[in-house]
Amino acid sequence: MNDDPRTHDALIRDLARAARKAVRQLAGSPLSQRNMALEATADRLRTQAGSVLEANEKDLAAGQARGLSPALLDRLRLDKDRLEAIAGSLETIVALPDPLHRIMDDWTRPNGLRIQRVAVPIGVIGVIYESRPNVTIDAAALCMKSGNAALLRGGSEAVHSNHALHRVLAQGLADAGLDPAAAQLLPTQDRAAVGALLRAHDSLDLVIPRGGKGLVKRVQDEARVPVLAHLDGNNHLYIHPSADVQMATAVVLNAKLRRPGICGALETLLIDRAWLDRAPVLLGALLDAGCELRGDATLRALDSRILEAREADWETEYLAPILAVRVVEDAEQALNHIARYGSGHTDGLIAEDTEAANAFLGRLDSAIAVHNASTQFADGGEFGFGAEIGIATGRLHARGPVGLEQLTTFQYRVLGSGQTRP
Amino acid sequence: MNDDPRTHDALIRDLARAARKAVRQLAGSPLSQRNMALEATADRLRTQAGSVLEANEKDLAAGQARGLSPALLDRLRLDKDRLEAIAGSLETIVALPDPLHRIMDDWTRPNGLRIQRVAVPIGVIGVIYESRPNVTIDAAALCMKSGNAALLRGGSEAVHSNHALHRVLAQGLADAGLDPAAAQLLPTQDRAAVGALLRAHDSLDLVIPRGGKGLVKRVQDEARVPVLAHLDGNNHLYIHPSADVQMATAVVLNAKLRRPGICGALETLLIDRAWLDRAPVLLGALLDAGCELRGDATLRALDSRILEAREADWETEYLAPILAVRVVEDAEQALNHIARYGSGHTDGLIAEDTEAANAFLGRLDSAIAVHNASTQFADGGEFGFGAEIGIATGRLHARGPVGLEQLTTFQYRVLGSGQTRP
Repeated sequence: MNDDPRTHDALIRDLARAARKAVRQLAGSPLSQRNMALEATADRLRTQAGSVLEANEKDLAAGQARGLSPALLDRLRLDKDRLEAIAGSLETIVALPDPLHRIMDDWTRPNGLRIQRVAVPIGVIGVIYESRPNVTIDAAALCMKSGNAALLRGGSEAVHSNHALHRVLAQGLADAGLDPAAAQLLPTQDRAAVGALLRAHDSLDLVIPRGGKGLVKRVQDEARVPVLAHLDGNNHLYIHPSADVQMATAVVLNAKLRRPGICGALETLLIDRAWLDRAPVLLGALLDAGCELRGDATLRALDSRILEAREADWETEYLAPILAVRVVEDAEQALNHIARYGSGHTDGLIAEDTEAANAFLGRLDSAIAVHNASTQFADGGEFGFGAEIGIATGRLHARGPVGLEQLTTFQYRVLGSGQTRP
Repeated sequence: MNDDPRTHDALIRDLARAARKAVRQLAGSPLSQRNMALEATADRLRTQAGSVLEANEKDLAAGQARGLSPALLDRLRLDKDRLEAIAGSLETIVALPDPLHRIMDDWTRPNGLRIQRVAVPIGVIGVIYESRPNVTIDAAALCMKSGNAALLRGGSEAVHSNHALHRVLAQGLADAGLDPAAAQLLPTQDRAAVGALLRAHDSLDLVIPRGGKGLVKRVQDEARVPVLAHLDGNNHLYIHPSADVQMATAVVLNAKLRRPGICGALETLLIDRAWLDRAPVLLGALLDAGCELRGDATLRALDSRILEAREADWETEYLAPILAVRVVEDAEQALNHIARYGSGHTDGLIAEDTEAANAFLGRLDSAIAVHNASTQFADGGEFGFGAEIGIATGRLHARGPVGLEQLTTFQYRVLGSGQTRP
């Protein structure tokens, strides 16, 4: 590939043009045809597992030669079980209802014009991801079921695996009589091609980055195409004076420790001064469960195992069994803390006082506002969406879990009987 | 103002920080308080008309000295009637229902978690506009009613008028006990400040350009912040073989000639070959009404007054009493023509055959798809939205008319009774 940036722009334009044609076919296709493509892909993943695993071996060998870390190599690795899990996720998506053609609104104007808002695909979606090759199938399948075409750009360390998985996907589409251009893998690993993808606002409708913060930050900084993503999940719970101590303890332990590495994990706990007498139970339970606590002077006076919190701790998404803890004077100070340090992902409170809780939720500027429940429910599956492509903290189109419905947009249909505008 | 781009970035960040605080107040405010601010602004527009018109005189004098065209000077001009119209538009917005706090969805999960989707403000919205000073009030009022803060950047030729109108707005907000930072005018006319606004994706949630294509194109090309806008309205109607000749004639005349300069005006007419025998009535009516027609050879053979269409005609949004006309072999060719030359704004068909019409609408990739009605209905008022800030042809968040509801987003509320995730 030539270094001239226009070459990459032309490449993206050409891929997107073919993808757009595929969207027109998908948008008009019955659910059964889209599902057939997903089922055929699952079948082929099983029958062609050998060639996929062979390609994956090449990536693993190259990765070992390049000295990739064991964690990265594990992310890269496919085996029979992981392929079966990917096939299973395709079947999960098959079982979900059709996100297209839903009539979302329907009203009639005084002049007799009937106006409907009907769900249609977003269009051409760029998906940029890192070393996990399963994203090639998972992301394309969600796009395809919702009538969108995907331009896929995976990590260079997974290039052979991604090509093998993409071949299966293209065959699955063809098996169902659908245009394989509905799922295209970028034919180059040149980083400049990502730049071209991010500025292609004339030909792409959306970009979804799936990966670490470095990737998400680059996409958000550079993209002229709309982005659905979240950079951080620096999530907070506030313990209101009315909080039940047992509930608070159970919810906070779950929110922090169930899986500390997911984006819905709790990162900072704000305890109302009026609740301090009950705090030792909660803090002790966290410490006993192996959670490191970093707190202010008041809290450290309660338990000597609590380390000192610094300014950076309020800003940090640990993604680890570490929790920042702070005393606040009231709900107002808790809201100010969250407004200053939060990332708009998932925040909330524990409170028996429902009125106070509702007032608090209404003033949170977060995609997901939680009352008396674990922040780890910030997940498409837990919301009942069946499958998700990620979590969005932007404010437009979709916030929170991005599932099939969030991968659709709408068209107004104006149905008349010859009306003209006076 | 210093030329250092970081200075502008810091300025936008500071304005946006104050605006964000105002949003928190607005988001939690009752409808009556937001309406009170709009009413107070309308009252002050009437009582302080003198100072606004005086400021406007300065802009007009400066514009005349700089040799602005009579059309531009007219756009810039305010007088008693125009101020009264602005005050009236405020009162129209007061009468509209509250777009905030609507519960858009509400469901309960098997574990008892209740999940609601609740309408909340988008946040901080940049509005970039040109010479019409009324936009200062109109745009800020729509943002404010929907709980958003507006960062306003008007045309340099209207700088005195905009400052005078902004003072009225700030006083109106203060009269209602609301933070005047909910509507801020950029304190500099430096073009580089617009660049800073467009890249401020960390502090702004949305940018809305209101003006000509040059402005919209610059905003779409440069913005790292999400944009709601439309660049072109190259709109099409297809005359299906089943179209009624009288309806087709009435609708097409209205769609082209009622107001040829609006973005919903018809620009290209596609006539099915099977309808050619009825075409002379429609074409003759257009020509007799003073519409210039530019057509292909088949149509020119029907009426010698039809000029020759060139490739550029299919691409042109005339915004004038000129219409491109073309014969197509069937609906498929019409759809291909629209996919190639259309701008995704408003397209549709005239047809008595409802089944064929529905199939056609389902394959149109347009924000607004019209059957048997004038394309000039592409308007927030005609949709029943009461007021609009513009029309969007992007595919995310809002498509078509952008009214109060479209200026809101949502927050998920997860309401539990102590649930933890297994």
